[in-house]
Amino acid sequence: MHFDLVSGDTICAISTAPGMGAIAVVRLSGKDAIAVASSIFRPASPKFDLSGAEGHRQYFGRIMDREEVLDEVLVSVFRAPKSYTGENMAEISCHGSIYIQHRIMELLMERGARPALAGEFTMRAFANKKLDLAQAEAVADLIASNSKTTHQLAMKQLRGNFSEKIAQLRQKLVDFVSLIELELDFSEEDVEFADRSQFQQLLSEMQGEIGRLLESFKTGNAIKQGIPVAIIGKPNAGKSTLLNAILNEEKAIVSEIPGTTRDAIEDTIIIGGYNFRFIDTAGLRQSDDLIENIGIERTYEKIRQASIILYVCDMSDCQGVAAEEMLEEFLHLIEDESKHFILVGNKIDMLDQTPDHFRDFVELETIFVSAKRKENIHLIADSLLNAVKRFALNADTVVSNARHYHALLKASESLATVQQNLQSGLPTDLVAIDLKQAIFYVGSITGEIHTEEVLGSIFSKFCIGK
Amino acid sequence: MHFDLVSGDTICAISTAPGMGAIAVVRLSGKDAIAVASSIFRPASPKFDLSGAEGHRQYFGRIMDREEVLDEVLVSVFRAPKSYTGENMAEISCHGSIYIQHRIMELLMERGARPALAGEFTMRAFANKKLDLAQAEAVADLIASNSKTTHQLAMKQLRGNFSEKIAQLRQKLVDFVSLIELELDFSEEDVEFADRSQFQQLLSEMQGEIGRLLESFKTGNAIKQGIPVAIIGKPNAGKSTLLNAILNEEKAIVSEIPGTTRDAIEDTIIIGGYNFRFIDTAGLRQSDDLIENIGIERTYEKIRQASIILYVCDMSDCQGVAAEEMLEEFLHLIEDESKHFILVGNKIDMLDQTPDHFRDFVELETIFVSAKRKENIHLIADSLLNAVKRFALNADTVVSNARHYHALLKASESLATVQQNLQSGLPTDLVAIDLKQAIFYVGSITGEIHTEEVLGSIFSKFCIGK
Repeated sequence: MHFDLVSGDTICAISTAPGMGAIAVVRLSGKDAIAVASSIFRPASPKFDLSGAEGHRQYFGRIMDREEVLDEVLVSVFRAPKSYTGENMAEISCHGSIYIQHRIMELLMERGARPALAGEFTMRAFANKKLDLAQAEAVADLIASNSKTTHQLAMKQLRGNFSEKIAQLRQKLVDFVSLIELELDFSEEDVEFADRSQFQQLLSEMQGEIGRLLESFKTGNAIKQGIPVAIIGKPNAGKSTLLNAILNEEKAIVSEIPGTTRDAIEDTIIIGGYNFRFIDTAGLRQSDDLIENIGIERTYEKIRQASIILYVCDMSDCQGVAAEEMLEEFLHLIEDESKHFILVGNKIDMLDQTPDHFRDFVELETIFVSAKRKENIHLIADSLLNAVKRFALNADTVVSNARHYHALLKASESLATVQQNLQSGLPTDLVAIDLKQAIFYVGSITGEIHTEEVLGSIFSKFCIGK
Repeated sequence: MHFDLVSGDTICAISTAPGMGAIAVVRLSGKDAIAVASSIFRPASPKFDLSGAEGHRQYFGRIMDREEVLDEVLVSVFRAPKSYTGENMAEISCHGSIYIQHRIMELLMERGARPALAGEFTMRAFANKKLDLAQAEAVADLIASNSKTTHQLAMKQLRGNFSEKIAQLRQKLVDFVSLIELELDFSEEDVEFADRSQFQQLLSEMQGEIGRLLESFKTGNAIKQGIPVAIIGKPNAGKSTLLNAILNEEKAIVSEIPGTTRDAIEDTIIIGGYNFRFIDTAGLRQSDDLIENIGIERTYEKIRQASIILYVCDMSDCQGVAAEEMLEEFLHLIEDESKHFILVGNKIDMLDQTPDHFRDFVELETIFVSAKRKENIHLIADSLLNAVKRFALNADTVVSNARHYHALLKASESLATVQQNLQSGLPTDLVAIDLKQAIFYVGSITGEIHTEEVLGSIFSKFCIGK
């Protein structure tokens, strides 16, 4: 893939979702975009000329396929720089038939437009400084967002909160390097402008900031990929029934909105705007069977990946002696304090009364349910939402993009080298090299520095037409 | 489903194809459509008020979800009666994320809009006399069109050619009934205004017209459903290999257009703008086996349904004596002159030279191919296109809609009764009853007469958002 940041040749794409719809939108951008659109457009009023038309207006007319009418359409015109890409743009709003959509594309290509690469419209917006690179990436995230939180994450990034933070960080680093270089200029005079301990102080502050950003990736990534919830318990505790009950309950809620499509991944579900990624596991028990132990080892691995753990126990089976034994086994898992545990007492339909005395044994949050009869399942949803408050976007800036995370990690490594070199008393010019490296990494996030390769890899993840 | 033709309450729908895209369009229609859109829109310029905005313009701003920014959008405004539905309309062009699309719908519903029924926008256009019923139906056909010819058919109907023809026919019937009723008014004076043989003359002219329309349905339906092509021949002649070769060849061509989706029906393919529906059949041979004979009977049934027949023969097997025998068997099928036959001599890869002498035996169009090596397959495509010229839309008016066909059939039946009654010398008032019945049927096509039930059945076939 080759991105041409300057040519401004005319690109076109079907920008609405693929397939048949009531309407579809074909988009053009480039110096000649309006002229190309005009060449296949016959306005309702014969005196009107689209190529000279005012921007931000919609014009009714026909798309002509030679002498035949292909469709009756509305064409919008946007004039540079007041457009998404910053270039001249036209949008043809046509009937959403597959044939019409593709035929319009063919006609535009005959008139000199070429099909846009994935993300090429946004790439041009970046080239024309309408967006920085982190914001451009947020556009792709915004389009892919399927829940309140993924949407919020992307929207914050699109609106520049994150970019601003990165710009501030970069400015600090730039100021720092100026200070060092000033010293360098006067190095023959053996002057030391800032005392080195002050340098160290500044550096560790910046490391702290970067560290907080790196830490936030855990949250950002969990929101984007879905917050991992492991369902564990002894065999036959009703783990799968519970999972189905949760999925069903929420499925019904989601279906109230017409046309809502559930995620293809069977076990991901949106509750209260959060994506939860449920991980069903093999039953946990002592076993001498090698194969079974591999399964159990995998379960422990999944527990390690999870942020929330639902421990399911069969209440009909652990009324008396079994309860304590089970709890012991369970509690030794809870050493990891970063995880949130919820105890689910299942099969209450098999008991005469709710086993409230059970709560006396346990200091953990406990919910009694009947997965089979779908009783109290909504309490689990409530509890998951409470648990997830820790992932709430209270942090001003959350890193959710692996590329940004990687850049910050590299920046942090460079700064660590700087810290070390300062400590070892290395000459200032050597220290400056790693500092500049850190600036390079931080700058690459918003695209102050970019390579064609990086752009290609970023925009290829977009959908066509954006 | 209940259609309210007068209330004009505000309806909303996602009008672009379902799923994720670069952009999506949410549409509103109704008296308060612009006000409802305005209530969730925060314009870029704080002084601006969307609810008072000029039509056919696009306004940039934000969709607000309480105090949070949901998306940055362009909103178009259309003022009654200058809109698709003839009502006030607004179109919100947003980022095409699933979350944003549905959240906008929810916000609009909170502000008093309701989700539109399938086809409800077009139904309102019909109610506001922007379209007649046949044109409204053409909108659905236009959106579903996936080839040049289905598109042409729908476009002609949308642009009113068909409606005009029907209106003329109806006018003739209305004039005719006036004439008869005039006679009826003076019946006590025993006056006969028009002589009855003149009536008969007019009636048979109208029957002729309706007959031609009914006849055109064969073409219209073939275009819409795909022109049926049966592939027949002896066992092992290479029928399925040939079908695959044709499908592959054309698949490759279709794929040159980015994003082209092939029809889900495996054996339907578009060649040169025409839909062909291929019917692979069991091999034909004399057999005493009952089961096999049932298969062969089915093949004959498929031959009867087909408009074009590709007879495949194994050239490596019918060089000498076999050729004549095979041809005889074949030719007795060709008694039906409405079908187009193409003889395909397969497996020429197994011969030393092209068996051109074979053409001397046969007066039929003959194409030599190697299905296995995909040689000369393009000649079959050419030949199919030539054969299909008979289906070309040279006729001014083509009936392609089963509802229209049915209405015309019923009109024709009523007219036949009229003819009979006139002949039997029945009193004029009795004759008029069936004549009015014919007018009713013809009028139902363009919706001069309609029932809620008919509207419900028509518009429920639409996609949501149109």
